[in-house]
Amino acid sequence: MMIQILNDDFKTLQQQVTKRQQQTANKPEIEAAVADILAAVRERGDAAVKEYEAKFDQVELDDLKVPQATIDAAYEACEPKLLDALKLAKRNITSYHEKEITHGFIDAEQPGVIRGQKVLPLAAVGLYVPGGTAAYPSTILMSAIPAKLAGVDQVVMVTPPQPKGINPAVLTAAKLAGVDAIYQVGGAQAIAALAYGTEQIPQVDKIMGPGNIFVATAKKQVFGQVDIDMIAGPSEIGIIADAGAEPDQVAADLLSQAEHDRLARPMLVTDSQALATKVAAAIEKRLQTLPREEIARASVDDQGFIAVVANLDQAFTLMNQIAPEHLEIQLPEPMTYLNQIRNAGSVFLGREASEPLGDYVAGPNHILPTAGSARFFSPLGVEAFVKRTQFVQYTKDALSNEKDAITTLARVEGLEGHARAIESRFED
Amino acid sequence: MMIQILNDDFKTLQQQVTKRQQQTANKPEIEAAVADILAAVRERGDAAVKEYEAKFDQVELDDLKVPQATIDAAYEACEPKLLDALKLAKRNITSYHEKEITHGFIDAEQPGVIRGQKVLPLAAVGLYVPGGTAAYPSTILMSAIPAKLAGVDQVVMVTPPQPKGINPAVLTAAKLAGVDAIYQVGGAQAIAALAYGTEQIPQVDKIMGPGNIFVATAKKQVFGQVDIDMIAGPSEIGIIADAGAEPDQVAADLLSQAEHDRLARPMLVTDSQALATKVAAAIEKRLQTLPREEIARASVDDQGFIAVVANLDQAFTLMNQIAPEHLEIQLPEPMTYLNQIRNAGSVFLGREASEPLGDYVAGPNHILPTAGSARFFSPLGVEAFVKRTQFVQYTKDALSNEKDAITTLARVEGLEGHARAIESRFED
Repeated sequence: MMIQILNDDFKTLQQQVTKRQQQTANKPEIEAAVADILAAVRERGDAAVKEYEAKFDQVELDDLKVPQATIDAAYEACEPKLLDALKLAKRNITSYHEKEITHGFIDAEQPGVIRGQKVLPLAAVGLYVPGGTAAYPSTILMSAIPAKLAGVDQVVMVTPPQPKGINPAVLTAAKLAGVDAIYQVGGAQAIAALAYGTEQIPQVDKIMGPGNIFVATAKKQVFGQVDIDMIAGPSEIGIIADAGAEPDQVAADLLSQAEHDRLARPMLVTDSQALATKVAAAIEKRLQTLPREEIARASVDDQGFIAVVANLDQAFTLMNQIAPEHLEIQLPEPMTYLNQIRNAGSVFLGREASEPLGDYVAGPNHILPTAGSARFFSPLGVEAFVKRTQFVQYTKDALSNEKDAITTLARVEGLEGHARAIESRFED
Repeated sequence: MMIQILNDDFKTLQQQVTKRQQQTANKPEIEAAVADILAAVRERGDAAVKEYEAKFDQVELDDLKVPQATIDAAYEACEPKLLDALKLAKRNITSYHEKEITHGFIDAEQPGVIRGQKVLPLAAVGLYVPGGTAAYPSTILMSAIPAKLAGVDQVVMVTPPQPKGINPAVLTAAKLAGVDAIYQVGGAQAIAALAYGTEQIPQVDKIMGPGNIFVATAKKQVFGQVDIDMIAGPSEIGIIADAGAEPDQVAADLLSQAEHDRLARPMLVTDSQALATKVAAAIEKRLQTLPREEIARASVDDQGFIAVVANLDQAFTLMNQIAPEHLEIQLPEPMTYLNQIRNAGSVFLGREASEPLGDYVAGPNHILPTAGSARFFSPLGVEAFVKRTQFVQYTKDALSNEKDAITTLARVEGLEGHARAIESRFED
């Protein structure tokens, strides 16, 4: 792994890391094909959905919904060890995200004036779960549990039909997480069904989850009709460590993200040249026995770096500029550095807080802002599944007190009709 | 205004109202011209910004920043009546949005486990304010005050240079709202400067505010590099009223939104045929003396409607399907209907709560979700200017308790490197 000795100027490294992928316009053929699918499902509902499933997935289904008996059977047949792990994850995800629940307020502090805000759940949410090996049970828990805590009445899942049926671990996680219905539909036709509603599939207010280029294009095209989630980029891990960190553990944590994707970015920033050298060696050693060695090696070689800086302040400055998705603080008394962290999705404090802890069971979400967007985006949470509504009520006296201010501002802005609406309350 | 008598089936009306504008792809020439401007400003900074200002606005400026003395002079020269109105608005906007401030949490309920969440302000935010008559002082208050309450350190404004200098009411509102700097730059070059930073203009984390097609296209192209706000559609007002409502006031309120835009949508839903007839007549009468009659008439004739329904439950059902930006409840004891409102941006309860009250001084925000997006979007508020960061710390015993669950889930998902990272804590 490349070791860089940095002086005060982090600009080159920071620019290299945060350089965004050029926004490549989608191929017009894909945009057009997706637009056709959306229009067909919008007009003809399930008939169109079934045609596309026959065409793209070679499956003919009358009932799109997975029967409850199938879900229950998968749950009953689940290996106890896996079920226990999912239950532990559910318990911790629930107890963490419960603390994110917010409430509205009412303000009756001014005479004759009531102002307030209601926090309301979205009525329905759709989760897209890809087929095959990209269907992660843990991600179903991470999406559906906060949605249910927010009070979403209908959490529905769509996933492409599989030759041997939907992955039982996915069905088990969905049942545990409280998913209300699962439909065997994939691709752009699934996104269309969720956006517009069909005879069998309910219209939702927000569509979550990753998918292929057709799914991503369809989500983009229905945005506005429904809300969609942010698009996650390749995984990133940043580790700040000093000479006291355990090189082998640091290496293992860097590789845990490198194995996700050739474009994943493992980053170590340290004030210790000795640690840098040892971690580089430990990475090489661990790579040799890693099942996903090829992917992880590409990530380490092409995307990763070890930066040696003069002191820990510089390490935090650099990491805040990079704004990593995951940030490990492998330092003594790690909590004392919390105030130096400005930009990071999820922070892991201390030797035992290995990043995969957060991927599975700790409770904080694992759906996180990538590509430097932790500067302005947040981890997925309850907030993503609610919306706020304002309200206000005035007595005539209260309105009278503010009447001149309103009409003055309306007329300065050239909106006479606004002024007259207020004045209509004081006519005759 | 068209009066429709509705039976139980609202579907036709609801579809007509919520039908989105077809997403028309931007002209490729505009996309390309904007991409060129973004690239030039990214590479050459202020030199490029100044070239575009000379080319598009025929202005040659060395200092892009409006001098503090100019802002102070505008403030000092502000008519006292206008200044008082702006101050009242500021006071009420502040006292309302203060109640939206959220805090993080720390959870130390499980032995050996600390979990928490920090709420951090965005570091810098940019407000785009259009030139000419579309520069609304009230909108500056509505954007900048919540940003400052969130704790945003740098709230900067960009606005196209004007032949007679920036509108003094805009400068006054910016000073009152706590805007930290104002730059005389408009168009795509202003968006580029905010997204990438230049010698004079700081890079921001989020760009807010409306603009022409070049501004909107530039915002779309820099999204991801920075966050952007939602794109607001034409204004909408929905009013639910019964036979006891005052027809002339209802008409005046409908027209206050109709005067915004030919595409604005004024909607009345009532259980009283008599009220419907009287409101239609009052609208016609008021239209005849309205300065912006032509715009308002187009809105009323082409976009507006009065629907007569069998009872108030139906009125709420229909309005929840439409999800209007503004909703007036012109009914006795209006607060008792609050629980029936599921989808609306801002709600005005009772006879005195005329919509323009909320545009200017009541305190709730006037930047609101349009086009049915109140189903899933919220009014602008403090939440839009913060992001959350998760953190977790485990003792070795706590990790040991959850080790098997983590490694089981990691291996089910085919991520051996994740399992090994956890196991590295228990080797040696």
